[in-house]
Amino acid sequence: MTRDTAMPDALTRRELLAGVACAIGGVALAGLPTVALSQQPDPQTIPMVPADATKLQGAPTSAVGNRSAFVKPVRTPVGEVTGNSFAPLEQLTGTVTPADLHFERHHAGVPLIDPSRHQLLVHGLVERPLIFTTDEIRRFPQVTRTCFIECSGNGRSAFREPKPEMTPQKVAGLTSNTEWTGVPLKALFAEAGVREGASWFLAEGGDACVMTRSIPVAKAMDDALVVWAQNGEPLRPEQGFPLRLLLPGWEGNTNVKWLRRIELGTRPWMTRWETSKYTDPLPDGTARQFSFEMDAKSVITSPAHPQVLTKGWWPVSGIAWTGRGKIMRAEVSTDGGHSWHAAELQEPVLSKAHTRFTHMWKWDGRETVLLSRATDETGYVQPTRSELIKVRGIGTDFHFNPIAGARVTPDGRVFFHGAT
Amino acid sequence: MTRDTAMPDALTRRELLAGVACAIGGVALAGLPTVALSQQPDPQTIPMVPADATKLQGAPTSAVGNRSAFVKPVRTPVGEVTGNSFAPLEQLTGTVTPADLHFERHHAGVPLIDPSRHQLLVHGLVERPLIFTTDEIRRFPQVTRTCFIECSGNGRSAFREPKPEMTPQKVAGLTSNTEWTGVPLKALFAEAGVREGASWFLAEGGDACVMTRSIPVAKAMDDALVVWAQNGEPLRPEQGFPLRLLLPGWEGNTNVKWLRRIELGTRPWMTRWETSKYTDPLPDGTARQFSFEMDAKSVITSPAHPQVLTKGWWPVSGIAWTGRGKIMRAEVSTDGGHSWHAAELQEPVLSKAHTRFTHMWKWDGRETVLLSRATDETGYVQPTRSELIKVRGIGTDFHFNPIAGARVTPDGRVFFHGAT
Repeated sequence: MTRDTAMPDALTRRELLAGVACAIGGVALAGLPTVALSQQPDPQTIPMVPADATKLQGAPTSAVGNRSAFVKPVRTPVGEVTGNSFAPLEQLTGTVTPADLHFERHHAGVPLIDPSRHQLLVHGLVERPLIFTTDEIRRFPQVTRTCFIECSGNGRSAFREPKPEMTPQKVAGLTSNTEWTGVPLKALFAEAGVREGASWFLAEGGDACVMTRSIPVAKAMDDALVVWAQNGEPLRPEQGFPLRLLLPGWEGNTNVKWLRRIELGTRPWMTRWETSKYTDPLPDGTARQFSFEMDAKSVITSPAHPQVLTKGWWPVSGIAWTGRGKIMRAEVSTDGGHSWHAAELQEPVLSKAHTRFTHMWKWDGRETVLLSRATDETGYVQPTRSELIKVRGIGTDFHFNPIAGARVTPDGRVFFHGAT
Repeated sequence: MTRDTAMPDALTRRELLAGVACAIGGVALAGLPTVALSQQPDPQTIPMVPADATKLQGAPTSAVGNRSAFVKPVRTPVGEVTGNSFAPLEQLTGTVTPADLHFERHHAGVPLIDPSRHQLLVHGLVERPLIFTTDEIRRFPQVTRTCFIECSGNGRSAFREPKPEMTPQKVAGLTSNTEWTGVPLKALFAEAGVREGASWFLAEGGDACVMTRSIPVAKAMDDALVVWAQNGEPLRPEQGFPLRLLLPGWEGNTNVKWLRRIELGTRPWMTRWETSKYTDPLPDGTARQFSFEMDAKSVITSPAHPQVLTKGWWPVSGIAWTGRGKIMRAEVSTDGGHSWHAAELQEPVLSKAHTRFTHMWKWDGRETVLLSRATDETGYVQPTRSELIKVRGIGTDFHFNPIAGARVTPDGRVFFHGAT
């Protein structure tokens, strides 16, 4: 019976949509032309596509799958040893960041580590200094939770040198969202025995810059994890294989990768990484150190440059997140900030995790500006650029979260636009 | 200061663990020897690992990441055109199945489809037959939800020919868990206008077997989706790129991949795929057709063959799921089913999704049997093998969910074991 009802060649989309427009008054989806795919295939790598895939035997089962030849998401830039690569936010949906597209940030490249030789030392102000192998770590009670990691420099170029041609990847691609699995740091601390007066610990990575950050012991007793898996599989090398520190909601740099040493003490170590970087100059000339928690933020991932729109309905979709708990509200403005609409939040809304929001919008063909604004459960509202500068000064170099979005021109082109 | 406190070479694990055993009475983690990694590295593909990664510049940023050379999960078997590949459950943690490790099941191979030419026809008992391009589908209000897909033949070989050397991959690897994004099928139906009397629809795939299944329209009005993304990115080819039907909780085969046609009608089409397969013979000689909902099930993924244990604490960890809503309870027995312990469930527990459970267990070195048992929110309890046979007969060939686990021998070896 399948063959009897095969798709009729003569029935074209144009005829059908004319029918829709007629039948339902052109309200819902009338005038839908073909939209360019966000991922343009590379003709050089696309194999011969059969005119009718039902007439040709397909590919056999494989040990590990590959993306379709028509789907080529990439992080950029590549080849940076001391640098970063941005996740292609405009090509991602839902909330999971695929492990191989998680943004990167490293200061001396990605080290090659043999997990059977890797160890984590816990020492300093403890009753019993301990060394854990990666296999020993995996024998503790495990915890799995989904949360974002955002580089505290995310958004710098959009803040300093905003350009209309910036994509969401360029604007905010230094954030990613992952299901992490590991052991609560407090369980390791319980084994070692925290001595009285220990209020800070140093986390040290095993890469060539020997990344070190000072963290309050209170965070270990709260929700810090030593993780060995992301999105169901062992950590990727760029994300700290075989062990990384995970401090939910805190600036990316403190989530020390390739974790090999934790030392407990009575005060911060004032390492290079917390004095030369990651501090926030304030308008009064002083500087704020240890701005651990990331502020609430949102970014519209679609529509975005270089998409081209046609009139009609579009989902305005993006992600919102905060280091202080759950996103309470994501709002979308389709008139440059004059009015705001509560967007729909993808359930379940998780604490300290990317939250997908969507607001349906019908474009009438006139120039306009789309913006998004996040509010977290503490009541904190994502600021405009001028509100941010008011509390931080123009010299701020980290922790950027101004309201932004996209300008849509009458010809349907879409450009990055920040709210002033 | 980092350099001043570098890891002391003379401080060995053995000394430290002796210290632990002494200090805390040998209770918690005493006697932890090195455990073999579940993924054994292939010496031929492991590059030279530096003795000290901190002394060598690491790798630069990359467009798309790769797994560590020490981590090589694979689906098996490979090379099957009409067949399947099983996900390596014992190497996975948390609940996300990485997209490239999602189990495969296809009847004529994986087709190569150009998304810009792919269309979905909705016709039959509708007011307005419609054709949707993949880009048009993406303009509808989007829904993201996490749920499992399980092949209804999952567990067949463990049921028919149980062998002690079976890994979780072999026992139950035809289930995977994914964050899917798409459009509610009822939204497409609303566009087409369902005519009175339409109670079933046919879903047809665009592969070379032209997979067809009949589905009640009620499922479309409930929670069926037409999905275009998995785990944040476009569907993988093996999972139906560019479009697949998603019927949360229903047997895998009904989630038609490479979806190209939906026809509405008044009764099931009785296609080859719902008459020759996927029916359940019953003890009275009749057969049950359209067993859509997958029953509650669980599998222990660790400890499992070929792991080798030593005495002491181990997490007994696995996944539980049901097609009828949420997992209410996962229990672990460490004495062959004489007593049961409520395992800890990873939050949030999502409806029709894999739920990770963990129970901490201290092995005393004696032979024993570990089992897991799932109960769903309807009160349904995963049956033993004999209970299953009682209601289905020995000839059952689909929908296997008997209680199983692992036998641990005094030398620490672990073997597959089904509860009789």
